Amino acid sequence: IIVYDEECFQGRRHEFTSECYNVMEFGFETVRSLRVESGAWVGYEHASYQGQQFVLEKGEYPQCDAFSGSNAYHIERMTSFRPIACANHRECRMTIYERENFLGRKGELSDDYPSLQAMGWCNNEVGSLRIQSGAFVCYQYPGYRGYQYIMECDRHCGEYKHFREFGSHCQTPQIQSIRRIQQ
Amino acid sequence: IIVYDEECFQGRRHEFTSECYNVMEFGFETVRSLRVESGAWVGYEHASYQGQQFVLEKGEYPQCDAFSGSNAYHIERMTSFRPIACANHRECRMTIYERENFLGRKGELSDDYPSLQAMGWCNNEVGSLRIQSGAFVCYQYPGYRGYQYIMECDRHCGEYKHFREFGSHCQTPQIQSIRRIQQ
Repeated sequence: IIVYDEECFQGRRHEFTSECYNVMEFGFETVRSLRVESGAWVGYEHASYQGQQFVLEKGEYPQCDAFSGSNAYHIERMTSFRPIACANHRECRMTIYERENFLGRKGELSDDYPSLQAMGWCNNEVGSLRIQSGAFVCYQYPGYRGYQYIMECDRHCGEYKHFREFGSHCQTPQIQSIRRIQQ
Repeated sequence: IIVYDEECFQGRRHEFTSECYNVMEFGFETVRSLRVESGAWVGYEHASYQGQQFVLEKGEYPQCDAFSGSNAYHIERMTSFRPIACANHRECRMTIYERENFLGRKGELSDDYPSLQAMGWCNNEVGSLRIQSGAFVCYQYPGYRGYQYIMECDRHCGEYKHFREFGSHCQTPQIQSIRRIQQ
């Protein structure tokens, strides 16, 4: 991943091949544009992998709203980021549960779902989930919009028991679309 | 589709089972929240299906940025909308071309691609495209972000020869992710 401190790939630049805990330690105020050359990454609003999360796949992101997507409030910064080691487009499996602690109705997912309700899911929330293999992104709204929650099989033991574990920015269990992360 | 003139499904409401050319004719200033009960729809910023486009799949959209996604400027309105008749998750095929008028290198797509470049596409643009069956959404940035261009096999003869035909809001041929529309 190559990050720039100005929009449109201008200004100070730095190339990373592994995680960056705090881009400010490299003289950046924030990341304002970036290119992903290979692999899949997750970026975070704040240092130490805190705040809103952004999945970053191969391609070009010329300004902040290219990678932040649709959010409850406008994101103007990305301060830490790391590779998603277990991303694997072919071997992705997860289970979603209606209620926290893996209770209630459940659904097995191994594909992309721009609308969980169109697939037959019972409502607009997910109470808890388990990632058996690969990595997924869960979104608040249909069509992959809203807050992003990156879920990986090799972090957090692949288990997310309560919506507060979905991410430090998560305030409700509302999840309406889920997709695999392409490597 | 059920549309509301206030956020969070409050205020004036109206249910539609076919296209709406101008929601103002029903006493709405604009749509501020909506529920899709069945089918896939496309919404537009302005009347007469003009301006930015938003794909709307089954689920709940409690405010404008839930359906507008990530855009170059914030969208605060949706004024017309219609069903996407040919959406078919199982039978979707399209061809993308490097240059306008179906020239240059080409790629056959029948799946979802959060990053065209990770799939092997040569750059961050698509010059022209043909939809053989079903319907797709094309996006400016990877991960289904940025302006949305809804492409249907039964409109425009399924042929889009130049980026100006992608949508009335389209200003460049930049397309970095493409996915099928779920029905």
